[in-house]
Amino acid sequence: MIVVMEAGAPQTAVDHVVKLVREFGLVDHVIVGTDRTVVAAIGDKRNVDKSAIENAPGVEKVVPILAPYKVASREVRKEPSTIPLGARASVGGGGDVAVIAGPCSVESREQLMEIAHAVREAGAVGLRGGAFKPRTSPYQFQGLGEEGLELLAEAREQTGLAVVTEVMSIDQVELVSRYADVLQIGTRNMHNFNLLVACGATDRSIMLKRGWSASLEEFLLAAEYIINAGNPNVILCERGIRTHETYVRNTLALGIVPAIRRESHLPIVIDPSQGTGHAYMVPSMSRAAVATDADGLLVEVHADPEHALTDGAQSITPEAFAKTMQDVSRIAEVLGRQLQRLA
Amino acid sequence: MIVVMEAGAPQTAVDHVVKLVREFGLVDHVIVGTDRTVVAAIGDKRNVDKSAIENAPGVEKVVPILAPYKVASREVRKEPSTIPLGARASVGGGGDVAVIAGPCSVESREQLMEIAHAVREAGAVGLRGGAFKPRTSPYQFQGLGEEGLELLAEAREQTGLAVVTEVMSIDQVELVSRYADVLQIGTRNMHNFNLLVACGATDRSIMLKRGWSASLEEFLLAAEYIINAGNPNVILCERGIRTHETYVRNTLALGIVPAIRRESHLPIVIDPSQGTGHAYMVPSMSRAAVATDADGLLVEVHADPEHALTDGAQSITPEAFAKTMQDVSRIAEVLGRQLQRLA
Amino acid sequence: MIVVMEAGAPQTAVDHVVKLVREFGLVDHVIVGTDRTVVAAIGDKRNVDKSAIENAPGVEKVVPILAPYKVASREVRKEPSTIPLGARASVGGGGDVAVIAGPCSVESREQLMEIAHAVREAGAVGLRGGAFKPRTSPYQFQGLGEEGLELLAEAREQTGLAVVTEVMSIDQVELVSRYADVLQIGTRNMHNFNLLVACGATDRSIMLKRGWSASLEEFLLAAEYIINAGNPNVILCERGIRTHETYVRNTLALGIVPAIRRESHLPIVIDPSQGTGHAYMVPSMSRAAVATDADGLLVEVHADPEHALTDGAQSITPEAFAKTMQDVSRIAEVLGRQLQRLA
Amino acid sequence: MIVVMEAGAPQTAVDHVVKLVREFGLVDHVIVGTDRTVVAAIGDKRNVDKSAIENAPGVEKVVPILAPYKVASREVRKEPSTIPLGARASVGGGGDVAVIAGPCSVESREQLMEIAHAVREAGAVGLRGGAFKPRTSPYQFQGLGEEGLELLAEAREQTGLAVVTEVMSIDQVELVSRYADVLQIGTRNMHNFNLLVACGATDRSIMLKRGWSASLEEFLLAAEYIINAGNPNVILCERGIRTHETYVRNTLALGIVPAIRRESHLPIVIDPSQGTGHAYMVPSMSRAAVATDADGLLVEVHADPEHALTDGAQSITPEAFAKTMQDVSRIAEVLGRQLQRLA
Repeated sequence: MIVVMEAGAPQTAVDHVVKLVREFGLVDHVIVGTDRTVVAAIGDKRNVDKSAIENAPGVEKVVPILAPYKVASREVRKEPSTIPLGARASVGGGGDVAVIAGPCSVESREQLMEIAHAVREAGAVGLRGGAFKPRTSPYQFQGLGEEGLELLAEAREQTGLAVVTEVMSIDQVELVSRYADVLQIGTRNMHNFNLLVACGATDRSIMLKRGWSASLEEFLLAAEYIINAGNPNVILCERGIRTHETYVRNTLALGIVPAIRRESHLPIVIDPSQGTGHAYMVPSMSRAAVATDADGLLVEVHADPEHALTDGAQSITPEAFAKTMQDVSRIAEVLGRQLQRLA
Repeated sequence: MIVVMEAGAPQTAVDHVVKLVREFGLVDHVIVGTDRTVVAAIGDKRNVDKSAIENAPGVEKVVPILAPYKVASREVRKEPSTIPLGARASVGGGGDVAVIAGPCSVESREQLMEIAHAVREAGAVGLRGGAFKPRTSPYQFQGLGEEGLELLAEAREQTGLAVVTEVMSIDQVELVSRYADVLQIGTRNMHNFNLLVACGATDRSIMLKRGWSASLEEFLLAAEYIINAGNPNVILCERGIRTHETYVRNTLALGIVPAIRRESHLPIVIDPSQGTGHAYMVPSMSRAAVATDADGLLVEVHADPEHALTDGAQSITPEAFAKTMQDVSRIAEVLGRQLQRLA
Repeated sequence: MIVVMEAGAPQTAVDHVVKLVREFGLVDHVIVGTDRTVVAAIGDKRNVDKSAIENAPGVEKVVPILAPYKVASREVRKEPSTIPLGARASVGGGGDVAVIAGPCSVESREQLMEIAHAVREAGAVGLRGGAFKPRTSPYQFQGLGEEGLELLAEAREQTGLAVVTEVMSIDQVELVSRYADVLQIGTRNMHNFNLLVACGATDRSIMLKRGWSASLEEFLLAAEYIINAGNPNVILCERGIRTHETYVRNTLALGIVPAIRRESHLPIVIDPSQGTGHAYMVPSMSRAAVATDADGLLVEVHADPEHALTDGAQSITPEAFAKTMQDVSRIAEVLGRQLQRLA
Repeated sequence: MIVVMEAGAPQTAVDHVVKLVREFGLVDHVIVGTDRTVVAAIGDKRNVDKSAIENAPGVEKVVPILAPYKVASREVRKEPSTIPLGARASVGGGGDVAVIAGPCSVESREQLMEIAHAVREAGAVGLRGGAFKPRTSPYQFQGLGEEGLELLAEAREQTGLAVVTEVMSIDQVELVSRYADVLQIGTRNMHNFNLLVACGATDRSIMLKRGWSASLEEFLLAAEYIINAGNPNVILCERGIRTHETYVRNTLALGIVPAIRRESHLPIVIDPSQGTGHAYMVPSMSRAAVATDADGLLVEVHADPEHALTDGAQSITPEAFAKTMQDVSRIAEVLGRQLQRLA
C-alpha cells in the first residue's frame, strides 16, 4: 500500500500516517518526492481495512499495491488448474476446449431429451439447464425444481453429458448436489457470500458466473471464498457486463480471458448467450471466445426458441449450434487445441 | 408489447407473429406504417417471456409497453406508503424525513453505545450497524454475528432508536428478526430472490438496497418479490451505482428520487456513505438527497474513522454528522418538511 | 509513479526498470516488500508516456501518483477563482450562486425574448440558447446560426443577462465571440483539443461541459488546455454521464461538486436539464445541485415545451422555473449563500 | 413512434396527443389496451424532435420505432459496401480481411520505415501512424504535424501500404488529404459534427472511430453525417467503450460486429490496441475480432514499445504482429475468407 500525502502536508501529518501504518503491523517507508511525500507500507495484511487511512489529515489517497486475492492467483499456483466436468470431461489445465450446452430452463422431458441428444451429437461434453431459475420478476416461470433435476440426471444417463445447473440458495445446495456434476452460481449471486461458502463445502465443481458489474478483483475474490471454504474446483464464467449499450442485453468483455490467464490458474469459460442476449450474435461470439483461447463455452440451445419459457431470444437452434461447433473446432485447431470429446 | 417487423417483411412473417401473439393469449392489432409494419399485442401477461417473439422470422425488435411491476407501482396504490421504523418512527407517506445513522459494523459495546447516543442526540430516529457483514474478501472482518445483534438491541433499549441491520442469508432471517426492527437487504443481495421471499415472510420492515447496476425496473421488481411474499413494508434505498467514475466508490444517482416518486408508492431513502465512498463528500450529498425530497437518509458515523474495522474511509464523525443534521433540517423546511423525531 | 514488479521478478528486470526510470529523467527509489519489489520514480515529468514501462519484462503494473493537471489544480492556486459572466455577473470564488437559463435553441425573436424576460424576472443572471446546435442526426434542426447570435445579443440588450452560447468549431470562435459573453464547449467537444486551444486564445469566459464519459482527470485536463492557451476564465459544467440507467437520459453525478472543490479552484456549475433529460426531474435536481454547494445552474426553459424544436422533453416552463428559483434561493441560504442578482 | 399514455389518462389527454401527432405531419392510430392507451404515430419524420410529446399531460413515455439513420442502413443499400484503402486495397464488401498496422505516432523516419516494412512483410495492406495526436494532456507529445505526413507518404512510396492517419480539425482536412489515403476521425471527435461534414466533402475514405460511450445509433448517425455531406466511403471502427472495468483501458465490445452487419452496409474494423490498452491482450483480441467476421483490424505496432512516445503500453512488436497475422489468417479461412494482400 502507498499512502500519497497532499502537497504541502506538514510533517506531523506524515508522522501520524507512519503511526497508523505501524499500528496495522506494517513497515513504513517514507519517500519525499518533488511534489509530495508518499508513505509506502510494507507487509501482507490483506484483512486490514486500509482505506481508513484515507481519513487521516493530510492524506490525498491510498493506493493498494498487492492484489487482494491469493489462492486463486498464479502466484500461489503457477500451473493452470484442471477442473472436473463430471466423470468423463474436464475444463482448464490447458487442455481441450469444453463446450456445455442446453436449454435455459428444463421445461419437460421431451424438450430436454431432444436438446440433450442434439448437443451431444454436435460435440458438447456438458448439459446446461435450469431447474431453479432466478427471475427478475416474481410472475415469471421459476423452474421445475427437483423434477427438473431428475430430468437432467436422466439426460446424463442417456447421453453421458455432465450436468451443470444453478443453485440459488443454501437450502438447495444439498439437493442440487445429489443430481448435478457442476453447481452453477449465477451472476446475481456472485456476491452472495454465504452461498459461496456453502458451495465451497461440497465436492461438486462450481461454475461461478461473473456479476453484472463485478471487477476482475471481485470476481477472483468470490472464487477465493469458495476455495477457502475447501473446494478448489472453481470454473470462472464470463457472461457479459452491464454497460450503456442497448443493442445487446449485456456487453461480452472478452478481454477478461487473457486477463484471467495472467492473474489466475482457474479456467475461464464464456457464455455467449447471456453475453449478448440475441440468438443472431451467438455463433460469432462463440467463435470469438474460442479465438481468445477461452477454456470452454456455455451455450443456450433450444429446439423451438419461439416457445421457450425463458430466454428464447438468445437461444440458438440445434442446427445453428452444430454449425457453430464445426467452426469453433477449426478455430481451436489454430491455437493448437481441439474440442473436447467425452472420455 | 409492440412487435416491430423488419422493413419489407413478407405478409407470412406478419401472420406468423400474429399467431404467436394469439398463442400468448394476447389480442393482436396490426398497424401498417410507411416504413414498416408493427403488431401491437394487447393484454396483461406479465409472466410471458415475450422476447421469444424476437426470434421469429422478419421481426426486428420487440418493445415492451407495460412496466413489469405491479404491486410496487402507483397504479395499484396512488397514496405514498408509510413504513414503520420500529415502534416510534416511520418513513415515507409524505411525512417527516427519517434519518438512520450508525457505524458500518458493530465492533464493540463501547463503540456502538458512543455512536448510538451521539446520533440520537443529533436527531436520528434509527440506528444502523452491521452484525453480519458482506465482505468482498474472505480475509476481511465478517462481523460480530449474534453478539452484534445483542448490542444493537441494547443500544435501542438505551436510546429508543429503531435498529436497522443486514441479513445476508435465509438462515439468518429468523435470528436477525428477533433483534432488528428493519432487515436490510444489501446491494449484493438485491437479486437474491430466495432471500427476498424469506424476508417477505417476516413482519419486519425491509430496507432494500438497489443493486450496483440494477435498473429502476429491476429494483422495483425486487421490492415486488417481497410484497408478493406477504410483506408490504418495503423501504427502497439508493446507494450509488457502478460507473466509469473513479473519484467516487459509487456514483450516487439522485435522479432516482423523482423517478421512484413517479412510479411507486414506496419510500426512497439515500445512503450518501456507500453512495460516494468518501467521508468528505457525505455532508454535501446528504444535503442534496434531502433537497431532492428523499424520504430519509442512511449515514455511516464512526467516532474514530481511522480505526474503523470497515468502511472507515466513508464514515463521518459524530461532529460532522451533527452539523449535517442541522443543514438537512433547514433544507427539509424549504420543502415544507422537517426532520422526524422519535415519537 | 510507482512501478510494481511481478512477484519473483528477477533482479535484472528490476535493474532494467531502474534504467528506464533514469532515461526518463526521474530519480529511482527501490523498495523491496514482502511479496514484491516496487520502484518509485521521483520527479515531475508530466509529459512522459510512462505507461510504456508497463511493457518491460517483469513489470506487473505502473501506478501514477501525481495528478496530471497543474494550472487547474488547487496546488497552483489555493483560492477559488471568480470567472466573469459578462459585465454584470460572475461565477465562483465562493460568491453567490449564479443561475443561467434559457431555451435549448434560439428559435425566433418572439420565443427568445419571452423566455429571456421570464428568466430575468425569476432571478437568472445569464441567458443560455444555442445558435449552432450539435445534433446527433443530420436531419435535425441545426440552429439559426448568426441570426440566433443576433437575437441573443438583442435579448442581452433588453434584459442585461449575460449571453452563454455554444461554439462547435474553430471557424465559429471569432463570430460567436463577437456576440457572446461566455463560449460554451459542449459535452461532445470536451475532447476536441483544437477547439479548446482556439477558445483559449479568446478573451471570453469559457463554459466547459464534461464529456459523457470523461473522468475527473480528463475534465480538468481539458480545462488545462484552455488555461494553457492563455485563457484562465474557465467554468466547469457537469451535465450527466452515460451509464446503464434508462429512466434518465444521463446520470447526474453530483459527487463531482465536492470532488472539484477539493481538486481545483475553478467554479463548477450543474446542468439539471441535460443531466436528467426529463422536465419533471429538473426542479428536484436543481435543488440538489445547489445543496451540494455548486457555484451555479444552467437550466433549459421554454414557454411551450411541447413545440420546442430541440430538447422539449427536458425543458421546464417559466412558471416551474420561477418556483425552482424560490426553492434554490432558500437552499442557498442554508449554506450561507444567496442567489446572485445582476449588478 | 408510439406514445404510451399513463394508466387512467383522460380522453382529453389522448385527444391532445393526437392533435400534436397531426401537427407533426404524422398519422395517428389510437389503440386502447387493457391497462392503457397508446397512440401510434405513422410516417417518416426523422427530423422532428418527437420527445417533446413526452411533456404533454397524461403521457407516460414515447417509444421510437424507426431507426434514425437511413443512408448508412441496410434498408437503403442491401449489399455490403466496399471502401477503398488507397489504390491497391479495400475493406468491406464481404471481401478479404484488411489489416492496417503501424505505430501510434510517427516519431522519426527511421522508426516509421522500420515498422512500415515489418508490417508490410507480415501482410498488412495499410499503414497507420499519427501526425496530429489528440492527447488528453497538453503536456504530452502532440505529433510531428506535416513532417509526419511527409514521412507517411514516403513510407507508402517504399511499401505500397495505404496511409491511414488522423485529422483532428477542419483546418487540417485539406493538408492531411494531400498525404493520406484514409482520414481517421478519432473517438474523441466522433461527435464533432463540423469535422464530420468537412471530411464528407473530401474524396478520401474516412475511418470513423466509435466514441467512448456512443450508442450504435449515434455511431451510425455520425457515419450518416459524412455520407450526407457527399462521401459514401466510410469505414466504421470499434475501439472499445468506457465501462467500470479497470484491467483494460477500454472494454472491446465485439458484439458490435454482428450488430453492424445486421443494421448497416458499411464495413466494420476492430482496433484491439485501443480496445484493450495492453500489449499482452492484443494478439488474442485480434484473433477474436477476425473470428467475429470483422472486415479488418487496426493494430498498433512499435519496434521498441518501451520507448514509444505514445501508447507504448498497448503496442506490440513486429514479431508479435507477424505471429498474430499467421493466426488471424487461419481463422479467416475458417470463415471462408483470407487476409487481403496488396493488389
